[in-house]
Amino acid sequence: MDMSKKIHLTEAEIPTHWYNIMADMPNKPLPPLHPGTKEPIGPEMLMPLFPMELIKQEVSSDKYVEIPDEVRDIYKIWRPTPMFRAYQLEKALDTPAKIYYKYEGVSPAGSHKPNTAVPQAYYNKMEGVKRITTETGAGQWGSALSFACQMFGIECEVFMVKVSYEGKPYRKIMMNTWGAQVFSSPTNLTEAGRKILSQDPNSPGSLGIAISEAVERALMDDSTKYALGSVLNHVLMHQTIIGEESIKQLEKAGDFPDVVVAPFGGGSNFAGISFPFLRYKLEGKRDIRCVAVEPASCPKLTRGVFRYDLGDTVGMTPLIPMYTLGHNFVPAPIHAGGLRYHGAGAIVSQLLKDNIIEAAAIKQLECFEAGLTFAKTEGIIPAPEATHAIAQVIREAQQAKEEGKSKTILFNLCGHGHFDMASYEQFMSGKLVEHEVTQEEIIASLAELDTPEIG
Amino acid sequence: MDMSKKIHLTEAEIPTHWYNIMADMPNKPLPPLHPGTKEPIGPEMLMPLFPMELIKQEVSSDKYVEIPDEVRDIYKIWRPTPMFRAYQLEKALDTPAKIYYKYEGVSPAGSHKPNTAVPQAYYNKMEGVKRITTETGAGQWGSALSFACQMFGIECEVFMVKVSYEGKPYRKIMMNTWGAQVFSSPTNLTEAGRKILSQDPNSPGSLGIAISEAVERALMDDSTKYALGSVLNHVLMHQTIIGEESIKQLEKAGDFPDVVVAPFGGGSNFAGISFPFLRYKLEGKRDIRCVAVEPASCPKLTRGVFRYDLGDTVGMTPLIPMYTLGHNFVPAPIHAGGLRYHGAGAIVSQLLKDNIIEAAAIKQLECFEAGLTFAKTEGIIPAPEATHAIAQVIREAQQAKEEGKSKTILFNLCGHGHFDMASYEQFMSGKLVEHEVTQEEIIASLAELDTPEIG
Repeated sequence: MDMSKKIHLTEAEIPTHWYNIMADMPNKPLPPLHPGTKEPIGPEMLMPLFPMELIKQEVSSDKYVEIPDEVRDIYKIWRPTPMFRAYQLEKALDTPAKIYYKYEGVSPAGSHKPNTAVPQAYYNKMEGVKRITTETGAGQWGSALSFACQMFGIECEVFMVKVSYEGKPYRKIMMNTWGAQVFSSPTNLTEAGRKILSQDPNSPGSLGIAISEAVERALMDDSTKYALGSVLNHVLMHQTIIGEESIKQLEKAGDFPDVVVAPFGGGSNFAGISFPFLRYKLEGKRDIRCVAVEPASCPKLTRGVFRYDLGDTVGMTPLIPMYTLGHNFVPAPIHAGGLRYHGAGAIVSQLLKDNIIEAAAIKQLECFEAGLTFAKTEGIIPAPEATHAIAQVIREAQQAKEEGKSKTILFNLCGHGHFDMASYEQFMSGKLVEHEVTQEEIIASLAELDTPEIG
Repeated sequence: MDMSKKIHLTEAEIPTHWYNIMADMPNKPLPPLHPGTKEPIGPEMLMPLFPMELIKQEVSSDKYVEIPDEVRDIYKIWRPTPMFRAYQLEKALDTPAKIYYKYEGVSPAGSHKPNTAVPQAYYNKMEGVKRITTETGAGQWGSALSFACQMFGIECEVFMVKVSYEGKPYRKIMMNTWGAQVFSSPTNLTEAGRKILSQDPNSPGSLGIAISEAVERALMDDSTKYALGSVLNHVLMHQTIIGEESIKQLEKAGDFPDVVVAPFGGGSNFAGISFPFLRYKLEGKRDIRCVAVEPASCPKLTRGVFRYDLGDTVGMTPLIPMYTLGHNFVPAPIHAGGLRYHGAGAIVSQLLKDNIIEAAAIKQLECFEAGLTFAKTEGIIPAPEATHAIAQVIREAQQAKEEGKSKTILFNLCGHGHFDMASYEQFMSGKLVEHEVTQEEIIASLAELDTPEIG
């Protein structure tokens, strides 16, 4: 049994397959619908946007999908990622709980996002795609895709939400360094962008607008496709490399988690670490709790509704069965930019609906407090997104202490905070404000929805 | 033999000892002199500044010094660091050379500096020190010491050069996150600072002034000591953990370098990776070239003189036998802030004097070009300091190609560039300027020296 702080895997131990939880779900997600006709859409309708192999993965019910050697070769730049036992945090909390964390911040982009960016770039390359478009908010996904495209020699175009483009120049430069073109969205390059600009030349942009622009651009020619960093089934599946490695690492420590915790934006971070463990539950072999932690200011899992909704604001994406706050919901400007999304992916939504997973919503100040505690005990400064998981872990550890019971907690430290120091300064100087969302605001946003309900 | 991209070590393989090259040097460095009397100083004179254990290490001739368990425990947060075979870079250069790199950017502070910050904080803690003062320029050393002090519960005060304090706020916040107090130097807290401010209230500060302030502050009470991030013998020795790990990793790959390359500021980065390999040369077992790469704008090794000089500008430090450009030399504002230092440590200087190591000076634009090539091939964005090593590696690899001979090259990728994206933007947009230093400037700076020459 490995009692050390860091649990290693060798390069040869990088998993050979992703896990597709679809195969084990008692209730499969409902099909996506066409935004116009509201009829179920077939895989062929996705062909203008994605390469065939990714579309196959999107609808696959195979339990395991083999990771191509070329993808594993790039993974080797930062994988296997380390797993740590958080001895110092445990001591500071004086808890009987054992806390482990998987650290994805060692990737070149500093987050877990390259886990799916690399295979997406690879499958596009294999099918002759010359250019990939995407959107990015805080910049983590755009960075990851830029890196991945550079590795396979594909052009990358990123539509970056204007307010981030101006406020987070370093993320933009990072993308440029990997050869990507980055546009401040809304742009004049697309119909969607021009429409917004004609209404409001000073529009700060939004993720919804940026998605519309990237999709429109991808539709303009056959050798250009589109890529998304979360929500979709194949994206979540690529991230299961995190959980598959974690299982091997905990085996070496002679342990298995009672609870797995991860931040929740669109679902890829949470799915990545938790789905491989959920397999044991779905197979009836182990009981395990998996907790998705969302910001209290964007509470789709805990206060949203389960119905069909759009992935973007303009209506260019299919309707997806999801927990949503409504596609016009504008999340408050919290610093965990990666969690500011109105809806959840279809698989995660179905699992929550079926009470197979849990959700929690935590306010920004508690999260930063937890992040600071973590930096001061474990030494790594977490990204604001990751602090949501830490805050929940601290709650779980304190509960274990109160109950006088040990338990094993695993969480996903999905990225470092080296690009987010300004938000830490705001917190430490007492300037970080709490963002509440009222029940009236949620009801008002949901009232605008004319998308199909789920019976 | 391990043919994989990444060569792993387990936590149990973290070296148990640092290597003290002093034991093997054919000519030992000359002793430091008192700045006033110009007489050799004994260890006891360093006691107001450093804990006894570090002073012992500073003058030790023991070949190996054991790493305390408490230090190894903190090292485990990021050590062993990975070593990579740079297959993609080799391919892009079409070279017969084999290129390996040791990646120190995975530490919590993003550079190799915590390797010495942690033992320095530890030995201070053991001797009852309550507070450590230091200076920082670009912020890498200050971040590392803040992290280390936090791990051992010691207060940390950082005097950060004003121009960096204002221009690199994120590094400052990082230090605050680890609980350190950061002052914009010159301050009103010290005699040295007040003197500068009375002459020039808008002084941008300098590393020399910041050192003077930190030293003065440490002398104010018995429970406060001072720490330095490079130059001194014990600092260089702590960094040999890099080379000791590298030896084990290359053994697994069945390889041994023909040449080891590292950036050169004060010497800790270069010493860290090269000294353990130099041991084989000094023991007569292997021939090996070790190349220290400095910026062409701060060329103490290639164009400086070997004589006694001060470590700071004000004259509070001992006189050290070094290659120097003169302690009043003001390096151009290049982006590799960690390499902007007028002198080299005593050990490295003696080794260069004795032709046991080599030095090269490379201009800023060639370095950034090399950094960009590296980011686009290997995927990791290097810190500006690290690009100096990469530029030299590319020269070596091209030479190997011209000569049609294979050789094995190892270099130290001492940190990531996530805090340095602005400099990459300047480079990519063609705005980065070259800084030349004329022979007249060097002669003028050296002419001011009234420090003892070395016969």
